[in-house]
Amino acid sequence: MLSKAKLKYIRSLERKKTRNEAGVFVAEGNKLVADLLPFFGCELLIAKSSWMATQGDIPTKELLDVDEDELRKASFLKTPQDVLAVFRQPAWQLDAADPSQQLVLALDGIQDPGNLGTIIRLADWFGIGHIVCSEDTADVFNPKVVQATMGALARVQVHYTDLQAFLTLHGEACPIYGTFLDGDNLYTKTLSGTGILVMGNEGNGIRPGIGELVTERLYIPNYPPTQETSESLNVAIATAVVCAEFRRRQQRSADTV
Amino acid sequence: MLSKAKLKYIRSLERKKTRNEAGVFVAEGNKLVADLLPFFGCELLIAKSSWMATQGDIPTKELLDVDEDELRKASFLKTPQDVLAVFRQPAWQLDAADPSQQLVLALDGIQDPGNLGTIIRLADWFGIGHIVCSEDTADVFNPKVVQATMGALARVQVHYTDLQAFLTLHGEACPIYGTFLDGDNLYTKTLSGTGILVMGNEGNGIRPGIGELVTERLYIPNYPPTQETSESLNVAIATAVVCAEFRRRQQRSADTV
Repeated sequence: MLSKAKLKYIRSLERKKTRNEAGVFVAEGNKLVADLLPFFGCELLIAKSSWMATQGDIPTKELLDVDEDELRKASFLKTPQDVLAVFRQPAWQLDAADPSQQLVLALDGIQDPGNLGTIIRLADWFGIGHIVCSEDTADVFNPKVVQATMGALARVQVHYTDLQAFLTLHGEACPIYGTFLDGDNLYTKTLSGTGILVMGNEGNGIRPGIGELVTERLYIPNYPPTQETSESLNVAIATAVVCAEFRRRQQRSADTV
Repeated sequence: MLSKAKLKYIRSLERKKTRNEAGVFVAEGNKLVADLLPFFGCELLIAKSSWMATQGDIPTKELLDVDEDELRKASFLKTPQDVLAVFRQPAWQLDAADPSQQLVLALDGIQDPGNLGTIIRLADWFGIGHIVCSEDTADVFNPKVVQATMGALARVQVHYTDLQAFLTLHGEACPIYGTFLDGDNLYTKTLSGTGILVMGNEGNGIRPGIGELVTERLYIPNYPPTQETSESLNVAIATAVVCAEFRRRQQRSADTV
């Protein structure tokens, strides 16, 4: 049974301000909630009794048995599933995102929650542990972002900071990569296993102030090179192609050692 | 001025059945409409007078000057722009999708309109001219798909057919590639510049009946190979990484000839 106050509380977590003040976020779905439960403290979990019956001990402060109608009212999904959980936001430390030790992804003003979630998911696939975002990038704890990550939040940390200051701080010690329509062919550039890869806003790309700090300008070749094609790739798509190429090179070096 | 009947007609085009019976589709936005106008016959174009003033001759059967409120009512977008157009559906011929002559993309049950649109856009980037879809794949003329293609429909043809029959027909003459979690490393496989690349449904991947026809099973390596990561990549992301690798190899061969 879900009280009106609890329902109102869950619905209020659609807003970033409310989420951050409460220090929590919402995740939904049988698989996603099960994937996140071992990694994030759970404040409140509401589920159908049929789902609960399939679980062992559920580590949550509060557990509520709800019916389909209550879940539908609480859910942020078009097709609600059997469980919704309110997790505590983790205390991710920006200091751990050290680009002299690893490849760090930096996002300059990504707006679309689906794109951000997809980027977090692919970062996980390609072993990128830290994403550093400009303050105006979509919020990682937006329910749409959380759903699109498909559980990758358990392994990828997402930080928000002054991106220009972050790049300036690390730019002397490591390469800063970015994609530009007038960049150099990705496949003929030297790529390091450490440094920062900057990806820009959906409509406008990387901002000039950030772009000036990029030392290695990359371009994903279209095919055939002479033919007219779309003017750009979706930002999550471009991120994936570049990350895949970084990792292909590293794996090739590892194989030949 | 937009009559009630015209508004009702435009809104009815959200449904696939209505679109196909009328043989039309809707595209919106200053850039997208301008990109498609040279390639598709235009039945009806509604726009603000401010937009019309920036255009030369507009090749459309019917042109209506509308205000912001009328556009908002007609629009399928969250943030309507200055123009909406109803285009005639092109008569794309499946015979042109000949995988003995080119790399053809095949989609087995892609459900999400955003994914389909993004795949069409990246196909254009990578010079793939034909996408062959199973009958249950999302409809290319769904307004959400059209918007996500960002104009790539001018260069990429999308066909719907019995995918199993299509693969059977062409399987003897050319390789059929597909991605599987137990496939072979993409980077160590021989990739041809012709053939069919099959990508599967978001939740379930490639159907068994289709999977049996795949002769080259591919896997996009995660990184590092020993570490636990997300269980899969978004289908548009996976499509991009594989297409990029096909084209990288072809370009490399071309460069060394």
